Amino acid sequence: MVLFAPEGLALWRSPLSRAIHRNRSQAHHRFFQLATVTPAGLPANRTVVFRGFVDQTNRLKMITDRRSEKIDHLTQNNRAEIAWYFTKTREQFRLAGSVETVTDQDVMSVFSEERRRTWQNISDNARLQFVWPDPAIARTSDLGKFSPPAPDPDYPVDNFVLLVFHPMQVDHLELRGNPQNRWLYRQNEVGIWQKLAVNP
Amino acid sequence: MVLFAPEGLALWRSPLSRAIHRNRSQAHHRFFQLATVTPAGLPANRTVVFRGFVDQTNRLKMITDRRSEKIDHLTQNNRAEIAWYFTKTREQFRLAGSVETVTDQDVMSVFSEERRRTWQNISDNARLQFVWPDPAIARTSDLGKFSPPAPDPDYPVDNFVLLVFHPMQVDHLELRGNPQNRWLYRQNEVGIWQKLAVNP
Repeated sequence: MVLFAPEGLALWRSPLSRAIHRNRSQAHHRFFQLATVTPAGLPANRTVVFRGFVDQTNRLKMITDRRSEKIDHLTQNNRAEIAWYFTKTREQFRLAGSVETVTDQDVMSVFSEERRRTWQNISDNARLQFVWPDPAIARTSDLGKFSPPAPDPDYPVDNFVLLVFHPMQVDHLELRGNPQNRWLYRQNEVGIWQKLAVNP
Repeated sequence: MVLFAPEGLALWRSPLSRAIHRNRSQAHHRFFQLATVTPAGLPANRTVVFRGFVDQTNRLKMITDRRSEKIDHLTQNNRAEIAWYFTKTREQFRLAGSVETVTDQDVMSVFSEERRRTWQNISDNARLQFVWPDPAIARTSDLGKFSPPAPDPDYPVDNFVLLVFHPMQVDHLELRGNPQNRWLYRQNEVGIWQKLAVNP
């Protein structure tokens, strides 16, 4: 059931897919850094795992815990920039855009079903972390709290949040080559992606 | 000649040095992502190379081009957060702090000499990039412009900027282990670093 309009493949999808493919032998190739702005106007940055694209769109999926700081940030300012460096092919993608948070409350969201599917697709271990003790407070000495009963693999727990990232511009830099190659991708007035080769 | 007060080694320096050492076989272990906030209040993020610590301090060095966007960002908002993920040992350091930009204009800066030393220590190729055509505009077709005469290796060109990052808090996460290990480092009222084990 697709409730949102399918998008054509954006012009930057092909070089990004190629980078993902070429770096697949390295487990960390799916890790990137997500920058947000705190309510106080300060930059925040952390490593996040890429969970694939939402089918038939150019939107990237991530997951997070409702109790994490980034949820506070994104609630006040939904803009983010991803810096994704591929260590094997030595190239960087910077994706600037907005993030939609899909929580258990968002039952009317077009991504509500996607949230459930994503929950079903993660590992038992990954699911368990969403019912661990609250993050970033003094370490719980009761280790049993980190071995709670396994949550239902079919229905996401309330703490489970799907993040849907909507890229608005993309900056692709290849370090190989002298000078390096760099391209900017932007959308024109009618939403068509344009590609421009620029100086590195 | 040290014009600034030497600092004691901060509590987070030892685990960070250990991570740098243990990951040294991977060329990209000196790469991290630096998040800043644009004058419009948007997050920005890019990969940057770690250039070592300023001697006898806990401040991290980076270099950049005066023509880069991050200079505009830091001039208006000098706060930044570094996300540094070490792929071999699977651990992340998040360092939040402020950035001092040291340009050719800052002759009275205590870091002016450090700027010159850093210029002397980078490669010929790295120095050349500071006299390349302006970045992020339509690619110059005249390739000769990317092979300018080599700048003086002794005196930095005007475009060369030293960034001195002053960490104010550090968040260290080890992915290995179940549950993962995480520590927060903060300074108390008199500037002494404190370490707290927290839930991941």
